[in-house]
Amino acid sequence: MNISELGEFGLIDRLAKKIQLRNASTVKGVGDDAAVVASGSARSLLATDMLLEGIHFDLTYVPLKHLGYKAAVVNFSDIYAMNGFPKQMVVSLGISKRFSVENIEELYDGMLLACERHGVDMVGGDTSASLTGLTIGVSVLGECEPDKVVYRSGAKPTDLICITGSLGSAYMGLLLLEREKKVFEANPDAAPQLAGYEQIIGQYLKPEANRDAILNLREAGVTPTAMIDISDGLASDMLQICKQSGVGAHLYLDKIPIARQCLDMAKEMNFDAVTAALNGGEDYELLFTVPLSLHDRVKDFGRVDVIGHIVEAEKGALLIPPNGEPVRLQAQGFR
Amino acid sequence: MNISELGEFGLIDRLAKKIQLRNASTVKGVGDDAAVVASGSARSLLATDMLLEGIHFDLTYVPLKHLGYKAAVVNFSDIYAMNGFPKQMVVSLGISKRFSVENIEELYDGMLLACERHGVDMVGGDTSASLTGLTIGVSVLGECEPDKVVYRSGAKPTDLICITGSLGSAYMGLLLLEREKKVFEANPDAAPQLAGYEQIIGQYLKPEANRDAILNLREAGVTPTAMIDISDGLASDMLQICKQSGVGAHLYLDKIPIARQCLDMAKEMNFDAVTAALNGGEDYELLFTVPLSLHDRVKDFGRVDVIGHIVEAEKGALLIPPNGEPVRLQAQGFR
Repeated sequence: MNISELGEFGLIDRLAKKIQLRNASTVKGVGDDAAVVASGSARSLLATDMLLEGIHFDLTYVPLKHLGYKAAVVNFSDIYAMNGFPKQMVVSLGISKRFSVENIEELYDGMLLACERHGVDMVGGDTSASLTGLTIGVSVLGECEPDKVVYRSGAKPTDLICITGSLGSAYMGLLLLEREKKVFEANPDAAPQLAGYEQIIGQYLKPEANRDAILNLREAGVTPTAMIDISDGLASDMLQICKQSGVGAHLYLDKIPIARQCLDMAKEMNFDAVTAALNGGEDYELLFTVPLSLHDRVKDFGRVDVIGHIVEAEKGALLIPPNGEPVRLQAQGFR
Repeated sequence: MNISELGEFGLIDRLAKKIQLRNASTVKGVGDDAAVVASGSARSLLATDMLLEGIHFDLTYVPLKHLGYKAAVVNFSDIYAMNGFPKQMVVSLGISKRFSVENIEELYDGMLLACERHGVDMVGGDTSASLTGLTIGVSVLGECEPDKVVYRSGAKPTDLICITGSLGSAYMGLLLLEREKKVFEANPDAAPQLAGYEQIIGQYLKPEANRDAILNLREAGVTPTAMIDISDGLASDMLQICKQSGVGAHLYLDKIPIARQCLDMAKEMNFDAVTAALNGGEDYELLFTVPLSLHDRVKDFGRVDVIGHIVEAEKGALLIPPNGEPVRLQAQGFR
């Protein structure tokens, strides 16, 4: 069977069905942002991610230091999405001949800068030759108190759906960089037209994992009922919470936070900014749910918007425009 | 600077110099078989490894199920080399279009078989498209009591140098498979000549991580002073212990255990079996040191040979033949 028939999520589901767990220390296996392991009285969180050249990044316009930073923070983001804090990181590099020592140092400097900002220790890894391009595998170990771990599965009807920051910018940044790459290929003398779009470009090239949001929630004394980070896009990631919590979700189109530059670039490109927010992915913002009773306290959480609420499963996962028919959320994933 | 000027170990050293550790929970960072993290009263061990098609494996003769098994056990081996037990595993796959769902299931079945045999839970990972071939990233979390963790750095002069199993077979198995591949390419009707060489082929295609050796050591009440698994070859791995323990080592050529099939194939190919043992790598046996006082108890450790002893650093790291001049051990690593 061709993998494209199942798609990424279908393949993962099919593989996950084969798994049997044996160790009492395994608190949560496959199916969340990170695995949860009991270590004495604490909980360890383990997340992993692999970035492949030509699939996840294009070195024509991605600086190696930014790439290293991003490779680290996308994993930190998975740990924050469990309401934990990343502490240790290991990295595996597959390096082809066209990279110099200085190139790999730049990449590494980006990773170490991310470690510094997020209080993480680089504790190991390996390097290897590669026939084709650069491959970066990162795994991160995090910590959380046992009663503070937040899964995708705890959302309940009437819970508020909250999002940090804004959505869609990373994807519009990518579209802009791809456009300028094409211009450059056609005419190497043309200067790239990037001025005024620093926010969307930065969001794509050097996203930040939302440590502040977790610190703010802790300060407010709030533990979300469910949480996930936006890596595949709001639609896919909302559906993950719905599936694992056994609930539906009603999202209000006019509540979805979209940054000014994202809207401007979408207009310039004749692209729908809402589609970027729903399906673009790579925003690394946190999508979480809290009980309705906390409505008045959401402002204490920092840069957070309420974009909808959880409903019973049979009411569906819908995007509701101010006027017109609700639209069913659709998951993406590679094919 | 070209990476080949530094070599793999030079590059790793150069990158490692940039690292600063911040977390009290980081007991041991870069530089051993696995990182060591304090979690409450226990120690967590974290190891990672990446296997790239065309570099680490050739699917012409490596069955996917064997490959999955190997990808898992090489990481388990790193945990055993710290005197711990692997418990959880995450895997990242980069998959190109030529792989079917059934291919990926075979690979996964091999990983799950390894998990079953070693008491490990598969707890997560991700899958992604790849432009070129198959990439497998595995990270493993293990456990150890704090007073039982064994580093590369604890070897002392007069300590006995011990090795489990035999060396060189994996490399001779690889040479045989490469030879038969060439024969097949020249004449697709020729049947591969593999009969009688099941041990060396098996050692390459489906190595085993040496859980039994660790169980035997525990049973004997012995904690080695230093330990490493043989992934790069006896010479490189012995030098790692020497470097990190600040000692030298005298290995006796006629004590190095080499299996019958390895010797036979080396003879057939006019290749030096000792070179396979010293520099071939991928044996995944355990090289460890124990105090001299345990000499008479080595037989209690199971399938273990004493191959030399630790000396002061200034006496060098040497391979001593029964007759003739001692030879200095040389590290390998990709360039």
